[in-house]
Amino acid sequence: MNDYSEGAHPDVLEALIRTNEEKLPGYGTDYYSEEAKKKICKWINRDADIFFISGGTQTNKIVIDALLSSYEGVIAVDTGHVSCHEAGAIENTGHKVMTLQNEEGKLCANDVEEYVRCFYEDENHEHMVFPGMVYISYPTEFGTLYSKKELTELYDVCKHYRLPLYIDGARLGYGLCAGDLSIEELASLCDVFYIGGTKVGALCGEAIVFKEKAPKHFVTFIKQHGALLAKGRLLGVQFDALFTDQLYMRISKHAIDMAMIMKEELKKRDYRFAIDSPTNQQFIIVENDKLEDIKKHVMYSFWQRYDETHTIIRLATSWATTKEDVEKLFQYL
Amino acid sequence: MNDYSEGAHPDVLEALIRTNEEKLPGYGTDYYSEEAKKKICKWINRDADIFFISGGTQTNKIVIDALLSSYEGVIAVDTGHVSCHEAGAIENTGHKVMTLQNEEGKLCANDVEEYVRCFYEDENHEHMVFPGMVYISYPTEFGTLYSKKELTELYDVCKHYRLPLYIDGARLGYGLCAGDLSIEELASLCDVFYIGGTKVGALCGEAIVFKEKAPKHFVTFIKQHGALLAKGRLLGVQFDALFTDQLYMRISKHAIDMAMIMKEELKKRDYRFAIDSPTNQQFIIVENDKLEDIKKHVMYSFWQRYDETHTIIRLATSWATTKEDVEKLFQYL
Amino acid sequence: MNDYSEGAHPDVLEALIRTNEEKLPGYGTDYYSEEAKKKICKWINRDADIFFISGGTQTNKIVIDALLSSYEGVIAVDTGHVSCHEAGAIENTGHKVMTLQNEEGKLCANDVEEYVRCFYEDENHEHMVFPGMVYISYPTEFGTLYSKKELTELYDVCKHYRLPLYIDGARLGYGLCAGDLSIEELASLCDVFYIGGTKVGALCGEAIVFKEKAPKHFVTFIKQHGALLAKGRLLGVQFDALFTDQLYMRISKHAIDMAMIMKEELKKRDYRFAIDSPTNQQFIIVENDKLEDIKKHVMYSFWQRYDETHTIIRLATSWATTKEDVEKLFQYL
Amino acid sequence: MNDYSEGAHPDVLEALIRTNEEKLPGYGTDYYSEEAKKKICKWINRDADIFFISGGTQTNKIVIDALLSSYEGVIAVDTGHVSCHEAGAIENTGHKVMTLQNEEGKLCANDVEEYVRCFYEDENHEHMVFPGMVYISYPTEFGTLYSKKELTELYDVCKHYRLPLYIDGARLGYGLCAGDLSIEELASLCDVFYIGGTKVGALCGEAIVFKEKAPKHFVTFIKQHGALLAKGRLLGVQFDALFTDQLYMRISKHAIDMAMIMKEELKKRDYRFAIDSPTNQQFIIVENDKLEDIKKHVMYSFWQRYDETHTIIRLATSWATTKEDVEKLFQYL
Repeated sequence: MNDYSEGAHPDVLEALIRTNEEKLPGYGTDYYSEEAKKKICKWINRDADIFFISGGTQTNKIVIDALLSSYEGVIAVDTGHVSCHEAGAIENTGHKVMTLQNEEGKLCANDVEEYVRCFYEDENHEHMVFPGMVYISYPTEFGTLYSKKELTELYDVCKHYRLPLYIDGARLGYGLCAGDLSIEELASLCDVFYIGGTKVGALCGEAIVFKEKAPKHFVTFIKQHGALLAKGRLLGVQFDALFTDQLYMRISKHAIDMAMIMKEELKKRDYRFAIDSPTNQQFIIVENDKLEDIKKHVMYSFWQRYDETHTIIRLATSWATTKEDVEKLFQYL
Repeated sequence: MNDYSEGAHPDVLEALIRTNEEKLPGYGTDYYSEEAKKKICKWINRDADIFFISGGTQTNKIVIDALLSSYEGVIAVDTGHVSCHEAGAIENTGHKVMTLQNEEGKLCANDVEEYVRCFYEDENHEHMVFPGMVYISYPTEFGTLYSKKELTELYDVCKHYRLPLYIDGARLGYGLCAGDLSIEELASLCDVFYIGGTKVGALCGEAIVFKEKAPKHFVTFIKQHGALLAKGRLLGVQFDALFTDQLYMRISKHAIDMAMIMKEELKKRDYRFAIDSPTNQQFIIVENDKLEDIKKHVMYSFWQRYDETHTIIRLATSWATTKEDVEKLFQYL
Repeated sequence: MNDYSEGAHPDVLEALIRTNEEKLPGYGTDYYSEEAKKKICKWINRDADIFFISGGTQTNKIVIDALLSSYEGVIAVDTGHVSCHEAGAIENTGHKVMTLQNEEGKLCANDVEEYVRCFYEDENHEHMVFPGMVYISYPTEFGTLYSKKELTELYDVCKHYRLPLYIDGARLGYGLCAGDLSIEELASLCDVFYIGGTKVGALCGEAIVFKEKAPKHFVTFIKQHGALLAKGRLLGVQFDALFTDQLYMRISKHAIDMAMIMKEELKKRDYRFAIDSPTNQQFIIVENDKLEDIKKHVMYSFWQRYDETHTIIRLATSWATTKEDVEKLFQYL
Repeated sequence: MNDYSEGAHPDVLEALIRTNEEKLPGYGTDYYSEEAKKKICKWINRDADIFFISGGTQTNKIVIDALLSSYEGVIAVDTGHVSCHEAGAIENTGHKVMTLQNEEGKLCANDVEEYVRCFYEDENHEHMVFPGMVYISYPTEFGTLYSKKELTELYDVCKHYRLPLYIDGARLGYGLCAGDLSIEELASLCDVFYIGGTKVGALCGEAIVFKEKAPKHFVTFIKQHGALLAKGRLLGVQFDALFTDQLYMRISKHAIDMAMIMKEELKKRDYRFAIDSPTNQQFIIVENDKLEDIKKHVMYSFWQRYDETHTIIRLATSWATTKEDVEKLFQYL
């Protein structure tokens, strides 16, 4: 159904248990938060300002509100998470989400170029919201991935117009295991990104990574947004575990392996795919009649209507998916 | 130093471990969240609309923003958490915190009456922020408690002027164990309150309790504020555990017992108290010279300067405080 | 170039001069504001709650923010003034502008029906912004008009889904003189609208008309938005003049007459129209080379590029346009 | 009653009449707006970035929102206009008004120093709103004035802590005519101020003066706040008139002369003053019984209750006050 239906990966849970009785200072100033940050810096192979937040929408809201001036908006594709599935969280901070058409969930460098350029040409645009940054997700909401070439082109446009590029990595691990970008490359091709924990083995938690210094008084900013946990250890301990012995990538790889097995089986059974996704989310087109049957045995996510008689559903794998799960699935599909 | 320096109470942790592999639906629609709500309703002995949020500032922000109209503000004491220690989280939602002077951390019914009455008398007040609700904390930020009589008087004023009364119960359990109000009484003397989990045995989490129906589309409102956890089970499971076999009150009682032993010892040693607190937070006045010594051995919270040569510090107990901890403390105090 | 390049219509100015020395109470509580409201009620032939605001964006911002709940957004066409030419004023109040595709600047009843219906069908939409009201302009930004049939259909959909329909009447008079809707009909086919003054003979000022009671404490709300003029008379006196002896409609009719003469001449000269506008704004497609020439003699508004070699420009008439102006124009066109 | 009960000064009105038929570009880009800016620069004897806004609350809201970061608040006295008489307009932008106690309406340099210093000493203040700027009004809401010495001390503190000092000059002219500060001195002792037009002879309008460059894209920011008038000429023409032949100061001087005559007479009649105001607003303490009588003949502003049997009322002069008005007043006082 999705990649957040179980609790934490056993190793993450184990870390919480092991450290539970330790007396640690609050608000993210604890030892484990510090360790986790160091490990992440090592992973991405550069210095960075890192902050832990409990959920993805919260993270998007905080980063975008922090990077934009009041008169600026954020560019995103129409299918971007911030555009349509965050209940107006971005607008709630006073900023417009400026949507461009997606190509299989992705934002095209050319479209951004064309859109932004006109703010510097033609007559003046003082009555319009200025583009202030660019938001993409990796993988996208459709499970697709930017190739290295695509991301490079997009970042080139961003740099040219001095628009910070922010990557929503809610499922970053799955993307890294399935695509042609290493984490070092990804980190070098944006200004800020977040490493999703909730959907990759944690109980909750995302790590914001600012390549340059974070905006001034960012901890106060987080507090103001209501997102500073008293027991910041909850996030620190989990991320410390996720970045010990490459757990984060191991979890991700496992989910991708399971997804590819599932994809193969779906192909064999002649399922039509709504989109060709290389990651842990697969979108298939099913007849409505058949769906009634499937519903009795399989938990899936309704994605959207395809036409009068068909529906697109999402099947997802995660760290918790086993081969047995996949096998069982195909008893009913 | 505070009541959030350890992780979760062992029974709460145990519940997280036990349920970790269960596949549960997201966003707070899981079985444990439902169970926890039922148990809380039973505890307060009435029906209620209940929602779980990960932290206290987030909770205050969401409740206050949901209850106020745009032209309204929230009345609170000058020392209230929302007034001074939430980095402007309330103002960030567009609302003024209208501060009245505290009496040992408490808000006086008379002061509210006097303040609000003038909006209905004299000349018009169209150029002023209207009082739209009243915020108090129980226990207060100074560890003090409203007596049943005080809270009744305050709520009478609120009802007279149709101002919802909201109680911040970050440390609710400690208050209930130390004061003369039962939970049923407290619930009947306000419109909304929250049951603090983070400081009373949980890893994170607070439970908002609306006695009447929650504002329309409240889940969307929570999502918009970035406060809806994908793995809502994290909060549901913990609150289910806290309200099983009266764990919440047992934890609280233990902390109060430890605090009273500590308080007695402090009195014996002739420490001066900044305030007479019956709860798990004790505020003592210490000479700055002596403080240098104490600092080497004891973790405490700096509270505020008392005068040129003295400082007020906070000592707190929690579920995790043992008699040995208290004894050890007095080797250095 | 536009319909706000001169000051006030002479009769409006005369009223300001005549009343200048009178001592009047402030903030819109003066005699003339009251008179103007009565005259407007008579004009629309129904009771209404009326408020004067100095400009159109301010008005849109205030009405939309007042009518929406926090979790709601406003539906508008992609070319709507609130969608693209108010610098994010709506988002600045925390609300999303939910754009649907325009048909010659207009919003189709069917498109609204289809968009809104899905919030009541399919799976739940708790993670999405709820449609909370509908915004249209009459005339539209392209000078086009809803027919009585179109507006009736649209309002039927709005009523069915309990979405208030709000009409931006920045150029209302011009629309009424050119279309098939009387003011009474228009007023009966929406919930709120504003009567534009700035572009129809006033120095500044728009009149918000709530058919039902205005939202509670609306004056305070206006003040909070910084839009309450101390000398509210400035708006009251002007609107009193505009609605004395049908000045508002006489001004509008004159502009439409001039526009139709201009349109005929343009047709004669084989100009291509970007859109067939029956109102005071005409949009023609001009070769870029020719434009260089025109620029020397004529003030026009650049509208948008048409293609590589052509540009769309706007020509507008107003109360101040004379036959001589139009004749002079065609010396250069 | 107040200083906004008449329309415009005759010379201001004359300018509006004279320029009414001129075709001018919109949104403040007209010739008169430019001229007015030049004249103001000459008056204050320095370069400056100047913008015209239609009212005072709007102006305060825009300047404060533009200068503060999200995590910052504005320091003001508890009786400051932004603190209590703008219906929460500042909080509506997301910022806290941090109030210090007034001394006859004024903010003391020492109080600011003490308040701000603690943010740089003691333990950390990450959970508190940071002071981001300082707001004062000149004259204050009580008609009192900062001496050159007082303002210098205050500005020194501001500069030391890098807090921009902003002066609300709603009644600036009256202050300049009554106090010991020249406009050049005042301009040199702050970072931003506004020159009040509405209460000093204009129909509406205030001029924001940034000594340094205005914040980036400030016109867009104004538009976003709904405060950009299409017919910007309305403000430009008026300010051009106010700063031609020293009209602004002549108007102000006249009002102060009338106020001083009134004050002398009040003293002769043994009226008690609530405060010793040197400007055009006088605050006297009147027995409630007597007030009933006065009410029949004199328009005054209720200020506040003094005690059970007395009330403080405000009497104000303006450009429109004549000797005859003052004489007539004393037939009833």
